[in-house]
Amino acid sequence: MLTRAAITEVVERGLAEDAPWGDITSEHLIPAAATARAVLAAREAGVFSGGAVFAATFAALEPAVAVELHVADGEPFEAGAVLATVTGPARAVLTGERVALNLTQRMCGIATLTARYVAAVEEAVARVEEAAGLPSGTITRTRVADTRKTTPGLRALEKHAVVSGGGHNHRHSLSDAVMAKDNHLAVLTADGTDLTTALRQLRRRLPHTVHLEVEVDRLDQIEAVLAGGADTVMLDNFSVEDLVSGVAVVDGRATVEASGGVGLETIGEIAATGVDVISVGALTHSARNLDLGLDIVLETPQG
Amino acid sequence: MLTRAAITEVVERGLAEDAPWGDITSEHLIPAAATARAVLAAREAGVFSGGAVFAATFAALEPAVAVELHVADGEPFEAGAVLATVTGPARAVLTGERVALNLTQRMCGIATLTARYVAAVEEAVARVEEAAGLPSGTITRTRVADTRKTTPGLRALEKHAVVSGGGHNHRHSLSDAVMAKDNHLAVLTADGTDLTTALRQLRRRLPHTVHLEVEVDRLDQIEAVLAGGADTVMLDNFSVEDLVSGVAVVDGRATVEASGGVGLETIGEIAATGVDVISVGALTHSARNLDLGLDIVLETPQG
Amino acid sequence: MLTRAAITEVVERGLAEDAPWGDITSEHLIPAAATARAVLAAREAGVFSGGAVFAATFAALEPAVAVELHVADGEPFEAGAVLATVTGPARAVLTGERVALNLTQRMCGIATLTARYVAAVEEAVARVEEAAGLPSGTITRTRVADTRKTTPGLRALEKHAVVSGGGHNHRHSLSDAVMAKDNHLAVLTADGTDLTTALRQLRRRLPHTVHLEVEVDRLDQIEAVLAGGADTVMLDNFSVEDLVSGVAVVDGRATVEASGGVGLETIGEIAATGVDVISVGALTHSARNLDLGLDIVLETPQG
Amino acid sequence: MLTRAAITEVVERGLAEDAPWGDITSEHLIPAAATARAVLAAREAGVFSGGAVFAATFAALEPAVAVELHVADGEPFEAGAVLATVTGPARAVLTGERVALNLTQRMCGIATLTARYVAAVEEAVARVEEAAGLPSGTITRTRVADTRKTTPGLRALEKHAVVSGGGHNHRHSLSDAVMAKDNHLAVLTADGTDLTTALRQLRRRLPHTVHLEVEVDRLDQIEAVLAGGADTVMLDNFSVEDLVSGVAVVDGRATVEASGGVGLETIGEIAATGVDVISVGALTHSARNLDLGLDIVLETPQG
Amino acid sequence: MLTRAAITEVVERGLAEDAPWGDITSEHLIPAAATARAVLAAREAGVFSGGAVFAATFAALEPAVAVELHVADGEPFEAGAVLATVTGPARAVLTGERVALNLTQRMCGIATLTARYVAAVEEAVARVEEAAGLPSGTITRTRVADTRKTTPGLRALEKHAVVSGGGHNHRHSLSDAVMAKDNHLAVLTADGTDLTTALRQLRRRLPHTVHLEVEVDRLDQIEAVLAGGADTVMLDNFSVEDLVSGVAVVDGRATVEASGGVGLETIGEIAATGVDVISVGALTHSARNLDLGLDIVLETPQG
Amino acid sequence: MLTRAAITEVVERGLAEDAPWGDITSEHLIPAAATARAVLAAREAGVFSGGAVFAATFAALEPAVAVELHVADGEPFEAGAVLATVTGPARAVLTGERVALNLTQRMCGIATLTARYVAAVEEAVARVEEAAGLPSGTITRTRVADTRKTTPGLRALEKHAVVSGGGHNHRHSLSDAVMAKDNHLAVLTADGTDLTTALRQLRRRLPHTVHLEVEVDRLDQIEAVLAGGADTVMLDNFSVEDLVSGVAVVDGRATVEASGGVGLETIGEIAATGVDVISVGALTHSARNLDLGLDIVLETPQG
Repeated sequence: MLTRAAITEVVERGLAEDAPWGDITSEHLIPAAATARAVLAAREAGVFSGGAVFAATFAALEPAVAVELHVADGEPFEAGAVLATVTGPARAVLTGERVALNLTQRMCGIATLTARYVAAVEEAVARVEEAAGLPSGTITRTRVADTRKTTPGLRALEKHAVVSGGGHNHRHSLSDAVMAKDNHLAVLTADGTDLTTALRQLRRRLPHTVHLEVEVDRLDQIEAVLAGGADTVMLDNFSVEDLVSGVAVVDGRATVEASGGVGLETIGEIAATGVDVISVGALTHSARNLDLGLDIVLETPQG
Repeated sequence: MLTRAAITEVVERGLAEDAPWGDITSEHLIPAAATARAVLAAREAGVFSGGAVFAATFAALEPAVAVELHVADGEPFEAGAVLATVTGPARAVLTGERVALNLTQRMCGIATLTARYVAAVEEAVARVEEAAGLPSGTITRTRVADTRKTTPGLRALEKHAVVSGGGHNHRHSLSDAVMAKDNHLAVLTADGTDLTTALRQLRRRLPHTVHLEVEVDRLDQIEAVLAGGADTVMLDNFSVEDLVSGVAVVDGRATVEASGGVGLETIGEIAATGVDVISVGALTHSARNLDLGLDIVLETPQG
Repeated sequence: MLTRAAITEVVERGLAEDAPWGDITSEHLIPAAATARAVLAAREAGVFSGGAVFAATFAALEPAVAVELHVADGEPFEAGAVLATVTGPARAVLTGERVALNLTQRMCGIATLTARYVAAVEEAVARVEEAAGLPSGTITRTRVADTRKTTPGLRALEKHAVVSGGGHNHRHSLSDAVMAKDNHLAVLTADGTDLTTALRQLRRRLPHTVHLEVEVDRLDQIEAVLAGGADTVMLDNFSVEDLVSGVAVVDGRATVEASGGVGLETIGEIAATGVDVISVGALTHSARNLDLGLDIVLETPQG
Repeated sequence: MLTRAAITEVVERGLAEDAPWGDITSEHLIPAAATARAVLAAREAGVFSGGAVFAATFAALEPAVAVELHVADGEPFEAGAVLATVTGPARAVLTGERVALNLTQRMCGIATLTARYVAAVEEAVARVEEAAGLPSGTITRTRVADTRKTTPGLRALEKHAVVSGGGHNHRHSLSDAVMAKDNHLAVLTADGTDLTTALRQLRRRLPHTVHLEVEVDRLDQIEAVLAGGADTVMLDNFSVEDLVSGVAVVDGRATVEASGGVGLETIGEIAATGVDVISVGALTHSARNLDLGLDIVLETPQG
Repeated sequence: MLTRAAITEVVERGLAEDAPWGDITSEHLIPAAATARAVLAAREAGVFSGGAVFAATFAALEPAVAVELHVADGEPFEAGAVLATVTGPARAVLTGERVALNLTQRMCGIATLTARYVAAVEEAVARVEEAAGLPSGTITRTRVADTRKTTPGLRALEKHAVVSGGGHNHRHSLSDAVMAKDNHLAVLTADGTDLTTALRQLRRRLPHTVHLEVEVDRLDQIEAVLAGGADTVMLDNFSVEDLVSGVAVVDGRATVEASGGVGLETIGEIAATGVDVISVGALTHSARNLDLGLDIVLETPQG
Repeated sequence: MLTRAAITEVVERGLAEDAPWGDITSEHLIPAAATARAVLAAREAGVFSGGAVFAATFAALEPAVAVELHVADGEPFEAGAVLATVTGPARAVLTGERVALNLTQRMCGIATLTARYVAAVEEAVARVEEAAGLPSGTITRTRVADTRKTTPGLRALEKHAVVSGGGHNHRHSLSDAVMAKDNHLAVLTADGTDLTTALRQLRRRLPHTVHLEVEVDRLDQIEAVLAGGADTVMLDNFSVEDLVSGVAVVDGRATVEASGGVGLETIGEIAATGVDVISVGALTHSARNLDLGLDIVLETPQG
């Protein structure tokens, strides 16, 4: 979730970094009384995210700047669309431009990439429904979820952008859910304890509100993990065939997550296996900034 | 430049974000006395950057973790290469893994992409030299420079990564050099002052150590800008032909920078025009995280 | 969980508050070269918690102070026990005394009170086992869990102290688990949607790793809540009889938590109803600082 | 004193701790447009303190929340009293509830406990006056003063609460007054200097605005301490008889403070000895949060 | 440049330092409802600087205080002049007085001293023009520039004050321009590389927007330094005769800066040598606070 | 008092200000392996202060730098004296030079100026003793005390420097002592209450450890102020004759402080009046940085 405090912190940090002792170009070239009117224009199509961040950047510089958003987070737009209008003192508009764009372009880039993954899943599911003669919407859409592969310092913004693109968030941090991987399981059972018993002991120590996700590498681990009380079983780097088998083994007793090697070209067939969640690091670690621009018109007061 | 203080700030912020109240998985699954030995392995080839950042992440968590770097910033490596070794308390190694990777992968991604742009320039220049029958190295290589299109909060790291990849830094922020763009020039001359006079007046107000870069859209603006005392003339979105003409007009009286629409496929021919600097936003705004992994082996103390 | 960073932040804030421009008494009365040896002594019996916090306070003031802990977090001790020894520069020992005690006394106070609640639960369960002729340990002990009624700024320390006392943590914050109360449910169903459907819709929007706890006031709400997918059903202010009924209705399909009006005299009978978790605000909001003292012997260098 | 800056810092820290990435329950369950009206209700009688803190918590989350206080700090109230009204966006009201309550309940708890100590002193003094046939109000009331046994990070709030309860503040920190205890005196006189001379030397080094308080364990130390220039003599753990003697010895030449082993049942007879100040650690280290609740009514916009 | 964020940071730090737990005098002596009207009065003549800082100090304490500035930064004023008017809650006016004055007096002190140096330069240049029979204004005024000899934590304010006094800023920090001194040059040429080559190699590594200033101690170093590409040649501790020679040697090929041993009595003759810039550490390291006072009239509400 | 935490905060802020993204000169010109040996040399005579600050600056940059202090705070030194030696990595020595000097020069400047004021007092008192035929040392030296006219952000350092120069500190801030001035007194007595009664009421509200200083403008106010319980009476802008009378009136019943219009030429005669304390704003607001230099010898590793 994107709190007011989180946005302010990111925006102030960005401005301090980009203009530690001011914007010497604007201060030397632009009269203090000049005003500007700018529009945030889409140079390519995409899905919007980050409106509050865009607006907060200018507000942090100068309360007299007004920002009007024309598109809500999560809405798609075409190339050429005007996404927001900024009006106010020209120096502040020029000084804030780059930080506002750097953040918004990144958020829109993530939202847009996420939307492509979500669309690929929806198409695959629709094909399955059609093939099975089921009415559209019968099958619950597999979730496209993010990971912790976010930019340090910007996680809340990037996870918000995933949601704007129609994706879902995975755990927010190392503090709010357990993800037991092969290394952990090896340690758990190093003294001869069987996996099920070890997981049950773990469960007893965990706060009851903590979700227990366990990663497995092979189909034959699944039963032990379920018996140990896992809430989610993560099938790591499974082939499509094994995913189908894994879903069948779990059979609704836990959430099934697929992970590893997921791309736009493969996510459809993975979704078609019936897994509940597909986690995709690329949503955040490989998103490209979307091409947005700020078209600024200055007005110098007549003298 | 990447100072110790800047690294510490980024790393501590990243860890606080990723484990605000600790890594509940490691603390519940890994004995406090367990140790780990991990190697930072390259899953693909690239250019290294961020060794100090990688090491500082673990140090910030737990001073008892030792990190040995096997590759220096700026060195290329092959897929499969072992870039660093981490040894120490297992919990700290596991807890720091993701932040360390997120930062290092991003820095290596930028360094690697930069190196590709730099190589493209070098090849183009070599072709020019060959065509002209000049000995290799005669022509000064055109610089590949970054922009302010960096991730807010990570600018120092990303600019360091550009240097690791053989690129050069442009101004660091809005505070340390003037970049006068069309908007600014329009304001400067709005009252009828000619551009040269206006720039000279500006120059007189600027601190003498501040570099004055002026962006032009047309060839016929260059003479006025040079007469006004610009240190660098930026030719914005010029065709290759116009760049050739621009370089001829400037004729060594200022640094010539080309900007706009630069890609891996076009940078060679732009460099061949003889411009001094090509600024490339893509180095930072479109770099993909490089695929690195941390292969961890845990050792639980025998009891 | 109590991270190194969290401890440092609390301790440095406490020292800055208690000696913003130094300890004028020690600086004026104690020679810089004087050393001290101090023991942390228990003036009453209790359960220890906060050893790392106690040590970190002196370390933050002066690295030359050495702290040796004689009791681990979670261990009980008698009145008169020596819990830790502090040696080093006398000024630092005297300056750090109060902050170290204020924090440690509070943590031990919470751990000790928690241990009393846990003991009351254990006795009640033992009675049930005995009455039923079951071997001791057959019945899983009901958890004694904390709440968010902690001291602002000290949550991580206080939740750690609860664990030291044998208790369990509930959710850490508003960010890491959903707790839907009567107000929320009223809103969810305000448009005529039935509760089960509303909860299912909610579940679909939540990250899959987020635990869904729903508070009910009446037995007849339980089935709808379970059908909606609640992970935990919280029975709020139920009578002992209704708790028994509630546990029977849930019948293992979710975790059952009892809350409201829990005291040392009532927790036993509540535990005997078979609920899984009893959350007790008093653990943190009504704990009394435990009586610990620092007995200091100064040694002034002979001259 | 409770400054605006101090309140803001505490409140923002508390909110960041309690909702680091937002209140996921409210954000998923409550429409953004819903409003709430809440009253801060007393579940038990007490003395109010912390109105500004309560209001600042909601303001920090969302400026659109309005808080009206119905009781001023220092005023007593009955169980059932409505202390404040909060109106505004429902999400912010729900998100801020716990931090606002945790702080206000603690402050009211301290104010209420302090008021009981103050009342005990007043009753004792009234009895003395009556016994001596003096008109009521003749004898200056002995002060009930706090100590440095406050919660790290909350000292300013807790000391304000003591004043709300009719108590007085002692020194704020180690930086603003000298308190020489047995350990310090032993060092001062270790080289054979007599206590009076040693204190005079100390006085000469101290800033002239620094109050010098000296703790004594025995009656026979008092004269030397007075001759040394102490502003306050603290009689530590004296019997009631010895307090009477101590007051007689000092005879108005310094402030007399009693300390050690003070409880609600003993403070009356201590006050009756005529000491000027009684310092009571329990005011802050043993206060119980007062039982206050926020009764919230949500209004969802009709659609 | 003086950004809003920089001012806020300085002012809040100053207030926290001067009233960490409030202004106990005002809070105990002045009714909360009392108002004040104060004027910032000049006790001596000078040049104004710091209006925004003065106003921000009161705003940070209490938004209800209004500050009206009667003199703009850079304007001269006479002794007795009223520079600003402050009205609002009396407590806030009294509490903010000292921090506001400490900052404003320092800034005005620097501006005033700078103006004296600038005047001395102008007079000297006017004499040269007159002697040469040139119309006034023919010769470009030599700049009076500041140095990095500023008060740590207040650099932006002090550099702004230099500009208010008619001076110019030199580089802002170690990060934004190169200043190669004798030590550096010795290292550069330690391996036998000649100075010109060494500087050219350096230039190739520097970002193209970084100004290269090189300090020389002897006239015979100048040609090598110019050939190496220096933007500014700093003639360090040159006699007036050598400065004349140095200006002749450089002959417009770079900016010429004089430094070392500059005082009010010598700056005129140094300026007359024709150097472009004279850097003067004294502007900031030896400025005396200007004598300003806040004349406050309190109004206590009638009861 | 100068705490480790206060020094660290000032030094880190200063370094961040002076090299926000590093020292580009050193990083580009000095090999990473080069070492330096530097001495802090006195260019003029003075009194030392700030050794710990000087050392901490280099330590904050790079732990490998070693600083040896040859003079203790408070010791006088001659021009040419070597005050400290710094050895370690050359880049860190060069980068830290300016911040270390800026702080140390200021502290030594204050200590040196203070020592001159203290010497003037001592000479005056010696003359009085001689004139009265008293043995030297009979009369307690009048204190030279600082004020709150310090540089915002550097108060603790500047007050420490005053002590290094033989002066005394006045109150540290608005929070730790009351100073009632004419404005306050006017408010206190606005409702007709006489001054003595008003001060007694005030005293009753103040914490008992708070020193009450009252400023008077006329001799006839003194008795009322003493009767009101003032600890210190400040005689503001009194003539020497009136100071003599004032001292006689107070007659040891309170500390007497003289303030206003104190300079090096007048402090002697003011001290001779027998006042206990003379507060001198000039110690901090008009001190000139002492001329110290860092003489650096670099050693480049042979290759």
